[in-house]
Amino acid sequence: MKRTLLALSLALASTTAAAEGAFDTAQDAIDYRQAAFGLIKENFSDMWAMMKKKKPMDEKAFAQRAQHLALLSQIPFTGFKVDGSDKGDTSALPAIWQEWDEFEAKAGAFQMATERLAAVADSGNADDIKKAFGAVGKTCKGCHDDFKAE
Amino acid sequence: MKRTLLALSLALASTTAAAEGAFDTAQDAIDYRQAAFGLIKENFSDMWAMMKKKKPMDEKAFAQRAQHLALLSQIPFTGFKVDGSDKGDTSALPAIWQEWDEFEAKAGAFQMATERLAAVADSGNADDIKKAFGAVGKTCKGCHDDFKAE
Repeated sequence: MKRTLLALSLALASTTAAAEGAFDTAQDAIDYRQAAFGLIKENFSDMWAMMKKKKPMDEKAFAQRAQHLALLSQIPFTGFKVDGSDKGDTSALPAIWQEWDEFEAKAGAFQMATERLAAVADSGNADDIKKAFGAVGKTCKGCHDDFKAE
Repeated sequence: MKRTLLALSLALASTTAAAEGAFDTAQDAIDYRQAAFGLIKENFSDMWAMMKKKKPMDEKAFAQRAQHLALLSQIPFTGFKVDGSDKGDTSALPAIWQEWDEFEAKAGAFQMATERLAAVADSGNADDIKKAFGAVGKTCKGCHDDFKAE
């Protein structure tokens, strides 16, 4: 129930996310999105370690990680909507701005996959969780392959 | 409507946030909470600049900032639930762990205030927004006064 509400509100949140982010400088925007991706990575990596049995599975901690990942998936993308943020200390490839619709679609796929993972993480169904976690990983890779420098 | 859902789901999210965060090292936990507060600060500062007429009010951008602030308000606190994270490169005062219930109450007050701000930011009612924004600022200060080094 609460997961459904979360997913619902996040889906609705996405539809209101059209406003341009406002940053004082392009580097501020780059720093912002990098910090957000850093938090995303921390959550993903910890779940990955549990999924791969590198550390003990803690279902409650995993579910919280999944929930925070879903919240954080909403955050970085305003940081790309800033003129000049294609230059500077960034691994973002020019393709992001050249193929903006494709980039946004992949960002949306990532957000949806994290919402799905958050929704199933409480279920305790290991198969569902494994599938949903794998789907999140694919959306990370799918975007990085095209839009992030090695 | 969507704001109500967001607030609801965040309130429910808070009740599930009892799981301990799992970090590889105490410094990872410190870095995590600092990065989260950095993102919170970026959103708050931009709204502050609009409220104080340091930059033009953009209601859509303001509402998005408010929404992201509410999402981000959920993130930092797992980073305090890690043994040894009271030491290291941190401005967190020992009082956090000595008066944990008080700290959690203040964290909760901050989260609730950001949810309220997100809920009213779409309304366009300048008085309500001003009041809700001021309330958020007070919850920042209320916690920093007691629990953060100058």
